[in-house]
Amino acid sequence: MTNPKKMSRTEISSLGKVAFVEQLTQPFTTNSNTHIRQGIGDDGAVIDRGGWLEVISEATMLEGIDFDLTYTPLEHLGYKLVVAAVSNVCAMNARAEYLTISIGLSARFSVEDATALYDGIKRATDEYKIDLIGGNTSASLTGLNLMATVIGSTSEEELTLRSGAKDRDLLCVTGNLGAAYMGLQLLEREKRVLKGNSTSQPEIHKDHAYILQRQLKPEARVDILQQLREAEIKPTAMIDVTRGLASAALHICRRSDVGVRIFLNRIPIASDTFKMAEEMHIDPVVAALNGGDDFELLFTAPLDKHQELLTMPGVDVIGHIVPASEGAALVTPDGSEIRIQAPDWTARMESADE
Amino acid sequence: MTNPKKMSRTEISSLGKVAFVEQLTQPFTTNSNTHIRQGIGDDGAVIDRGGWLEVISEATMLEGIDFDLTYTPLEHLGYKLVVAAVSNVCAMNARAEYLTISIGLSARFSVEDATALYDGIKRATDEYKIDLIGGNTSASLTGLNLMATVIGSTSEEELTLRSGAKDRDLLCVTGNLGAAYMGLQLLEREKRVLKGNSTSQPEIHKDHAYILQRQLKPEARVDILQQLREAEIKPTAMIDVTRGLASAALHICRRSDVGVRIFLNRIPIASDTFKMAEEMHIDPVVAALNGGDDFELLFTAPLDKHQELLTMPGVDVIGHIVPASEGAALVTPDGSEIRIQAPDWTARMESADE
Repeated sequence: MTNPKKMSRTEISSLGKVAFVEQLTQPFTTNSNTHIRQGIGDDGAVIDRGGWLEVISEATMLEGIDFDLTYTPLEHLGYKLVVAAVSNVCAMNARAEYLTISIGLSARFSVEDATALYDGIKRATDEYKIDLIGGNTSASLTGLNLMATVIGSTSEEELTLRSGAKDRDLLCVTGNLGAAYMGLQLLEREKRVLKGNSTSQPEIHKDHAYILQRQLKPEARVDILQQLREAEIKPTAMIDVTRGLASAALHICRRSDVGVRIFLNRIPIASDTFKMAEEMHIDPVVAALNGGDDFELLFTAPLDKHQELLTMPGVDVIGHIVPASEGAALVTPDGSEIRIQAPDWTARMESADE
Repeated sequence: MTNPKKMSRTEISSLGKVAFVEQLTQPFTTNSNTHIRQGIGDDGAVIDRGGWLEVISEATMLEGIDFDLTYTPLEHLGYKLVVAAVSNVCAMNARAEYLTISIGLSARFSVEDATALYDGIKRATDEYKIDLIGGNTSASLTGLNLMATVIGSTSEEELTLRSGAKDRDLLCVTGNLGAAYMGLQLLEREKRVLKGNSTSQPEIHKDHAYILQRQLKPEARVDILQQLREAEIKPTAMIDVTRGLASAALHICRRSDVGVRIFLNRIPIASDTFKMAEEMHIDPVVAALNGGDDFELLFTAPLDKHQELLTMPGVDVIGHIVPASEGAALVTPDGSEIRIQAPDWTARMESADE
């Protein structure tokens, strides 16, 4: 595609994702609506509705980039699409309520395929008690494109942005990290093995059920939000971990203007993740730092909640916030520090609101 | 893509679009939110927010299906994407306020391309006084995928659905129809002529400026809604005309459980549309009935508003509503009737909410 007026060409990869999105959206000024509590730059947008806050967040999944249909059952894909959008809303400490789905599908998809996809969407709406209210279905030339928008609500007191972390806050993460990434590696390996035999999807071996489930049918951590509320712990900043711990931690640092120390041996990694990582000669910590699709929550909390957070099931305290001047670093067991790098943007761009 | 559990395969085209979407969305029941005023089946969804109504609508545009970049300037494409979503909100007699944009773009797009696209999006947000508040930017393997969500508001008194048309209501349309379709035909012809010379986009010949502008840079009819409000005319049913008059009229008939008579010689067609149709041996009425991208409003209004609507600029009374048993038909100048057929769904599926 060419445009005779513009002779120069800058590769998106040369700019980096954050700068790219900032360049695109920087010219936009507010036109008429002074009720925007949070625009571009967080897990979702927030509109002040007077007495309550509306949260809007989107998830996009494109075939060949975000999923591979040779090993992804369509039911699970539909479920995961909804989870991805609900997880964004959770990361703002808000409750998901309404869903719209837009799909583009090419002629190679049958009614049965679409029905399987919607079966998964329906299971997710039931699980998260949200309602499908609209969307689009259109033809596509090039495969399956999926878009979910979730609308939710929260209060001024509960709203948690990426920008609220303070020096000395604790850094906490839910569940465990890297399992979905190892599940993906396993599926990719099975795909290579099965190449040439296109009529079957890989069987889920029961030893690998956990990591495969984490990749194919993740869940949003609504349960942890409830737990925090009951414990009267209000996170100061929060984000969901969709592109690895490193990326999520750096987003909090950037938006909160702080630094972070993460203790390497405190990063929660499941034993099944360790086992598969060993088998495949992958460092499980790298899987946790740079893998994707965990849909866990990374949040900061005041230091005085240390005791309660240490004993809270499903939550690990993995580090703490430091001044911005000290940067973001991993701390190894021997006390040395490794600077946290942003993952390579060229391989796979992150979503703009992450 | 295969699924060993499902052996049967039903083509989506064999089912038809309306039945397909109904089959997919029929299993969804309300989970928890009793505030849904309108779900799937109109131009947008409506949530009762207590004292006001929130309207959410989406527009999807996929490369190769909805646009061809060999002749579509990216600035115009960005503008049109926003117009498509704003037009949906207009069709519910609501005011557009907030916008999210999700784009998937492949490596062949440069930063300059994305900037041109966002220039057009920005011009539209300024024109329609709406604010960009969020969205996603992601990599795509296969070209350009665009999704806009517009959030707007209206009141219970003003909300206009597709389902409110009553027997003897007048049928009215804004602007003129078929021009965007003729613009598309011209662009396709130029593309064939220029084939092999991939470095230039077709020049806009000034004789064809109108039909090309209607295709490449349409507008949403916010102005007409204002006019109707000032005249104290509340439409009884409304839809925007995005896939031709026939499809739009049939949607109103289906949702309102009525029939319609449209007088062939009252369908507004611009002289430039006539000229190009003659040159290309296309029936201009067919362009109006089955063409796309007009973004005009088709609405019904009480019979007692006849005089005011006849003299209102930018509005034509083209027919009237009849009982459902009488069906949907065009009336020719000699008084004979031609049954209105739904356009072929297989060529290009409509959006689910249309």
